[in-house]
Amino acid sequence: MRILVIGAAGMVGRKLVERLAREGRLGSEPISQVSLVDVGAPEPPRDAPFAVDTMVADLAEPGVADQIVAARPDVVFHLAAVVSGEAEADLEKGYRVNLDAMRMLLDAIRERDGGYRPRFVCTSSIAVFGPPFPDVIDDDHLTTPATSYGTQKAMTELLLSDYSRRGFLDGIAIRLPTIVVRPGRPNLAASSFFSSIIREPLNGQEAVLPVPTDVRHWFASPRSAVGFLLHAGTLDTGLLGDRRCLNMPGVSATVADEIEALRRVGGAEAVRRIRHEPDETIMRIVSGWPRAFDARRARDLGFRADADFDEIVQVYVEDELEAPALSP
Amino acid sequence: MRILVIGAAGMVGRKLVERLAREGRLGSEPISQVSLVDVGAPEPPRDAPFAVDTMVADLAEPGVADQIVAARPDVVFHLAAVVSGEAEADLEKGYRVNLDAMRMLLDAIRERDGGYRPRFVCTSSIAVFGPPFPDVIDDDHLTTPATSYGTQKAMTELLLSDYSRRGFLDGIAIRLPTIVVRPGRPNLAASSFFSSIIREPLNGQEAVLPVPTDVRHWFASPRSAVGFLLHAGTLDTGLLGDRRCLNMPGVSATVADEIEALRRVGGAEAVRRIRHEPDETIMRIVSGWPRAFDARRARDLGFRADADFDEIVQVYVEDELEAPALSP
Repeated sequence: MRILVIGAAGMVGRKLVERLAREGRLGSEPISQVSLVDVGAPEPPRDAPFAVDTMVADLAEPGVADQIVAARPDVVFHLAAVVSGEAEADLEKGYRVNLDAMRMLLDAIRERDGGYRPRFVCTSSIAVFGPPFPDVIDDDHLTTPATSYGTQKAMTELLLSDYSRRGFLDGIAIRLPTIVVRPGRPNLAASSFFSSIIREPLNGQEAVLPVPTDVRHWFASPRSAVGFLLHAGTLDTGLLGDRRCLNMPGVSATVADEIEALRRVGGAEAVRRIRHEPDETIMRIVSGWPRAFDARRARDLGFRADADFDEIVQVYVEDELEAPALSP
Repeated sequence: MRILVIGAAGMVGRKLVERLAREGRLGSEPISQVSLVDVGAPEPPRDAPFAVDTMVADLAEPGVADQIVAARPDVVFHLAAVVSGEAEADLEKGYRVNLDAMRMLLDAIRERDGGYRPRFVCTSSIAVFGPPFPDVIDDDHLTTPATSYGTQKAMTELLLSDYSRRGFLDGIAIRLPTIVVRPGRPNLAASSFFSSIIREPLNGQEAVLPVPTDVRHWFASPRSAVGFLLHAGTLDTGLLGDRRCLNMPGVSATVADEIEALRRVGGAEAVRRIRHEPDETIMRIVSGWPRAFDARRARDLGFRADADFDEIVQVYVEDELEAPALSP
């Protein structure tokens, strides 16, 4: 089985490739080749039991999509995206990367002849939903994105569904919760603090909390995100019918829940490293985000998330602090 | 006020332009200029109390969108589309006309400087919805199109909403019911018979009915469609919030309801001109169509449809049989 990972240098992409290298197979199929593509140099996994090639390329450039599907991979994981904040700041870049590049990829697959019809897994986002929200969002909630990023994701979901219905590919889009605890440094995303307030205290550093502790949001660990991708790569898509976009399961937790989970792992000392510093802008942005989902369809299809926020913190400890060598 | 009508040679476009010419104003604003654009030559209205220019152009060709918005029209009616059957038969043409051309138009507007922000009214469709349907579809129903046409319309709705949110234009998308009774000849659309079984008998000709009489669907007259467009061109979009796509009101009727309405106007003789000839393909297609809507948002915003199917037939009689000169 040949696998193509686009966006392989990103956090989730790296972890997916590491997991593929550890397992050597996808479902019951041994992997013979993995191709890694990103705009920055993707790092090949160590000791992979399959051939690995890497390519630095911008999928939105003419010809690139054709080139990377020429080897007819059996499974494509498309993870590359301009994130929410950047898509809002740079309209043209957001549409170019999040919509046009994916469309070029889907068209390159469609234009292959000889009945080529790969499994195509892409990451969408709960940003396809916009306020007002019910307390718990169900699988039939309409998509009214409140950002350009969410708009681009919702548009690509529609395209993926249409191309799947027409038999050009076997697509599935998974709407990821906010992924925490992200390893590394804080970034400029409005959601950055959800990771920072766990990660920094566990690393002996101070973290800033810009919102009240009763703010509730929808989370999954990076390990769960990789699990979602692997499951989407292997499940029987006949069970999806014509609805190929799925809300992923996750953990609905408040910032207070996060802090209590931190206390159980890092003690009162870790919690004291969180400094409350209200930020009106971040509070306003976060107030427009979903708080919880009933992801019944995905659960019934076998997608599994973390049990609670304690498990999310535990995953961070195990994957980043106890085995950091696996996550450069 | 300057108005641009794209798709001005189509059935709804022609009727919109005739109505503008009769009234000479849009809402309370006198019209000074109307520009008509289509891939086929648009016919200027007779005795228009404003200047009219016409242009034969393909909006999806580079530079065309820039050219047609250069005069900075105050209101744009974008009606041009490849219809459902053709978008399914010719994938690339459907995406090119229904998605790319509209995007080029929106981008041409966005790239004008000096705070240009026109009212932008476009026709979407109930084809953005796919089965399974409830008996009555409400305003919060999710969009899961079952055709490429519906997909393209749903994608442009998302783009329109994002560009409106960002302040590039003041957009509104109206999801039209199936428009009956269409004047002229039967066409190859699967929905063609809904018009034929009224139109042909009233013109002394035989019509074929390919489905059982208990088939239910969602209708509006051409006159109502023009009314929706005019109202969308003038209403206070501040009332829309961030949800700029509206299910239009209409009439939920069965084929039996149609036939009874025909009987009241044309008598038993007209009804006898309907020949039942079941067509499995058309039955299958039509079974995947919506049957009724509760278009509460649109009604609350002042959109008005025909009262019942009798009125739809009456509109055909008045606008096409009694005053045919107005509708070439």
